[in-house]
Amino acid sequence: MFASRPVVHPMEVAAPAPAPANPAQQPPGVLMKDLPGMPGTPSGLGLRVTQLLFAAVSLAVMSSTSDFASVSAFCYLIAAAILQCVWSLSVAIVDIYALLVKRCLRNRRLVTLFAIGDTITCGVTFSGACAAAGITVLIDNDLNICSENHCSSFMTAVAMAFMCSFSLSPSFVLNLYSVASTRVLAAG
Amino acid sequence: MFASRPVVHPMEVAAPAPAPANPAQQPPGVLMKDLPGMPGTPSGLGLRVTQLLFAAVSLAVMSSTSDFASVSAFCYLIAAAILQCVWSLSVAIVDIYALLVKRCLRNRRLVTLFAIGDTITCGVTFSGACAAAGITVLIDNDLNICSENHCSSFMTAVAMAFMCSFSLSPSFVLNLYSVASTRVLAAG
Repeated sequence: MFASRPVVHPMEVAAPAPAPANPAQQPPGVLMKDLPGMPGTPSGLGLRVTQLLFAAVSLAVMSSTSDFASVSAFCYLIAAAILQCVWSLSVAIVDIYALLVKRCLRNRRLVTLFAIGDTITCGVTFSGACAAAGITVLIDNDLNICSENHCSSFMTAVAMAFMCSFSLSPSFVLNLYSVASTRVLAAG
Repeated sequence: MFASRPVVHPMEVAAPAPAPANPAQQPPGVLMKDLPGMPGTPSGLGLRVTQLLFAAVSLAVMSSTSDFASVSAFCYLIAAAILQCVWSLSVAIVDIYALLVKRCLRNRRLVTLFAIGDTITCGVTFSGACAAAGITVLIDNDLNICSENHCSSFMTAVAMAFMCSFSLSPSFVLNLYSVASTRVLAAG
């Protein structure tokens, strides 16, 4: 079945061989309006690239410190940043494909999948950033042992992880909004 | 204007003196279906009471430790639990009022207010729980200095804060869903 629907007629050169169409399996509820930031729009792709960049910088900076492995919260932040990179990269590739072949991604199943993925990655990245921030504040403000630690690296990684989760929240809210809208339109 | 609309005719004894009605200001988009867990339903009230209990237990347990003030993350968790208690108590009172006078709270402005409040308190409580969890894991697993600290109290407080934010998520998602639904129904 089609996972995406054509908005205008796709170019024959760019479009891959389509799967056999089954009209009975086409999802009924599709939003009419294309809000900026939703999957398949240029601003949606921009959000994904921003998330990917922030997560990659956070991962790189935290991994570059020698003593991250001694603190569980920093290891968790690294795992969260890796998950975030993989997810954002995957969705960015889908977005690029949709933009290239001019297909609309506001299909109910796809949007539900994106909403679930965004919920999980947003929660994991935000919790990793908070846990690492708690440790960084403990080292910096409460114990004052910044001289023995890589405080600036920790702070940069935490700030990038927070920026990543903040840039993830528009995608998350818009996908949840799309899911609710398509369900309401399909129901009534 | 009315902030809530009557579902059945309210009892004259329980209902307070109504404000002068202005039909022009009545919000147009109201959901038809009453999902369990939404504001103004018994399960919504149950969710609020659950959140209030978890936040209160977390606050009480964390405040009972003597050395919480030396760690910023624990102070932040206490502040977050206080905010959560105040918010859940306020919404629970509104829910009890709505249930007593049998009024429907699925008004667009009220639902938007609840959604914004839930977003803020959910974020604050979850971040406080994550930061405190990071410190607790550092004390317990990484440094192994549980004998000098109140690890069990910290763990209980963190677990209660997580339970509180998890019990907040149905309210948060349902309110966001209601906001999206009412906007879609009002637009189309």
